[in-house]
Amino acid sequence: MNADIVSIGDELLIGQVVNTNSSWIARQLNLIGIKVNKIVTIGDTRQEILETLKESSANSNIIFITGGLGPTSDDITKPVLCEYFNTSLRFDEEVFSMVDQFVSKRGGTMNELNRGQAMVPVSAKIIKNKIGTAPGLWFEKGGVIYISMPGVPFEMEAMMMESILPLIKDQFQLPFIFHKTILTTGIPESKLAITIEKWEKQLSEGIQLAYLPSPGMVRLRLSGFGNETIKSTISAEIDKLKMILGNAIYGYDSDTMEIVVGNLLKSCNKTLATAESCTGGNVARLITSVPGSSDYFRGSIVAYSNEIKTNQLKVPIDLINNNGSVSKEVVEFMAINLLDILNCDYSIAISGIAGPTGGTIEKPVGMVWIAVASKDKNVVSEKFLFGDNRDRNITRASVAALNLLRIYIQE
Amino acid sequence: MNADIVSIGDELLIGQVVNTNSSWIARQLNLIGIKVNKIVTIGDTRQEILETLKESSANSNIIFITGGLGPTSDDITKPVLCEYFNTSLRFDEEVFSMVDQFVSKRGGTMNELNRGQAMVPVSAKIIKNKIGTAPGLWFEKGGVIYISMPGVPFEMEAMMMESILPLIKDQFQLPFIFHKTILTTGIPESKLAITIEKWEKQLSEGIQLAYLPSPGMVRLRLSGFGNETIKSTISAEIDKLKMILGNAIYGYDSDTMEIVVGNLLKSCNKTLATAESCTGGNVARLITSVPGSSDYFRGSIVAYSNEIKTNQLKVPIDLINNNGSVSKEVVEFMAINLLDILNCDYSIAISGIAGPTGGTIEKPVGMVWIAVASKDKNVVSEKFLFGDNRDRNITRASVAALNLLRIYIQE
Repeated sequence: MNADIVSIGDELLIGQVVNTNSSWIARQLNLIGIKVNKIVTIGDTRQEILETLKESSANSNIIFITGGLGPTSDDITKPVLCEYFNTSLRFDEEVFSMVDQFVSKRGGTMNELNRGQAMVPVSAKIIKNKIGTAPGLWFEKGGVIYISMPGVPFEMEAMMMESILPLIKDQFQLPFIFHKTILTTGIPESKLAITIEKWEKQLSEGIQLAYLPSPGMVRLRLSGFGNETIKSTISAEIDKLKMILGNAIYGYDSDTMEIVVGNLLKSCNKTLATAESCTGGNVARLITSVPGSSDYFRGSIVAYSNEIKTNQLKVPIDLINNNGSVSKEVVEFMAINLLDILNCDYSIAISGIAGPTGGTIEKPVGMVWIAVASKDKNVVSEKFLFGDNRDRNITRASVAALNLLRIYIQE
Repeated sequence: MNADIVSIGDELLIGQVVNTNSSWIARQLNLIGIKVNKIVTIGDTRQEILETLKESSANSNIIFITGGLGPTSDDITKPVLCEYFNTSLRFDEEVFSMVDQFVSKRGGTMNELNRGQAMVPVSAKIIKNKIGTAPGLWFEKGGVIYISMPGVPFEMEAMMMESILPLIKDQFQLPFIFHKTILTTGIPESKLAITIEKWEKQLSEGIQLAYLPSPGMVRLRLSGFGNETIKSTISAEIDKLKMILGNAIYGYDSDTMEIVVGNLLKSCNKTLATAESCTGGNVARLITSVPGSSDYFRGSIVAYSNEIKTNQLKVPIDLINNNGSVSKEVVEFMAINLLDILNCDYSIAISGIAGPTGGTIEKPVGMVWIAVASKDKNVVSEKFLFGDNRDRNITRASVAALNLLRIYIQE
């Protein structure tokens, strides 16, 4: 079972938009055992679209097409598909009423352009778009399936997850693949590779290991091939890995650090608040990105100026003057005070130098102090030295802060 | 002058790595007037590489190839290029000594694998790699140029900037292209298209328009071809567009809403703070993602529980009980109080129902109230109705809040 991915959009060819859609689709296909032969990115050009579809259909069973389905004049995918499949457009009542509902729910009214979204190719099966106006289109010709989806990532992703992948799994007998991802944090990739080298070497032939690093964490994906029995083999391998890595493993598969920490708080019925300086509210944002987080998250004081540290968090000005605001003393004080100020069971406090400026020889860009406190246990704190990239420093400090809390609760 | 980009690597076809190289190359080529026809991503497979190069050479003058030049056995680009160009490998003294220096500088010693990096195709011109071990290769055949580069982004980028782009600019007379992107917010794509339909139709033939939507905003890209005079034509078209869209235009090109708002605050030497409920600190995070934001951003109170609204933001409990915490009355109170509490010139307050739960018929998921206040002007507030996706509601509420502040300051 082979697939091609065809991304359509002039904006991709001038590099204005990074083609994350094709990687996302490739990842999903890989997970269910469909091999991607080729990813082709072309412009909103009739001739290119026609030629690319023809070429791809010679080598692949399924062609995933994204982009060019919008309501405006530069979106030409739909008419070109009609030409390719030698079909015409028809008006679809159901799509019209979905677009109508979508538009009116947002306080808009139907106009020529979004009415045009209800015109669909006669020979296509319609894939509903619950969160946008362009429906997906499913064609079959000469034993090849062509699936055309909008280029807006979240619309395409929802369509794939809710409709297209289930349809493909129904229609085809796919090989058996089982994936399990182990989420680790706190150990850099190269050190991790050495730490688990012996374990990796003794993995059986039917199991593949992949390292997936991102700022502050490395995911280890185990893929097992064959049949159902590989599941217990992988489970036994993970038990061995737990003995080696201990609490550097924070979760599995689609867990995120904020979900793991949220579940821990929920299970012990405790609340959390944060006092953030260099992360600027990013830890609060991560925690509140989880639905239902209002059950355990009380709030945050983002103290981007020292005045807020002294006025809101009641840090004595002398403590800041003597130690600097990026110090063990200040973050521990912030964390302890926050427990009463925001009336929470656990607190996180962060202060650091995100960069690119503000560093000194003693306290360089990338230095971050993080403290965690609770009403029942002693405050703990740790100093981190990240790199010189502002975005990555904020991300890594946020992950490290949530991880410090995770270990603090678990121990 | 046309180019194809060919990315080689199995990791790209399983979605393990997002292909940022091709967007980066496309962006650089676009800037110097080279049109990218097609971006093709294939695996480390001899047959695929040979076929793709043959096909691309039929349509393009230059082919940029990345990936597969590493020292390990899965990297086959170099031998396959030798086959394609009917040439063999030779030992290159200069490359050898560069690799040797590179390796020993990092405390390593030369081994079989990195010694192999000094073997280069006889018919290729060598492009030095100052920050890695794989040199770039420049071939010419049948009037087409083929440039093979390593897949490590920073090695490829350095090679392009220092050697390859200057060589191309020397060798070819490139056409003139000028791009200008207009950033709009607050008008959905389909309504925007109708609003500017007449303007779009009167654009001269040498100018192309593209719509680039993302949550809460639509970017309009104008591309002009011909010569330098197109710049003033585009500038005049933008002036007309300003008359139509007014303050729905918030910036140009690489601006972001948080940069625009930051520049406004800097230019009037004013400070800002936020009081956030449903956005959970995301507005603070956006503002502080901009280097130097500590000059104008004081901080935030993320009031995820009503208790923090009453205790920290001093909102009377009766006001919440009578109006609900998602109401005009409460956000205006929060915004006004914040001015004194965090001692700032401008304030933003946000309260809403991000979802997926917590909605009612009167106040559905996606309803968000936003207020902006200052010490000199009246408080203003606005009700928004977004959708039912938590992440996008948070994103759109954050963009809307910054936009409300932008308009408030500008008026």
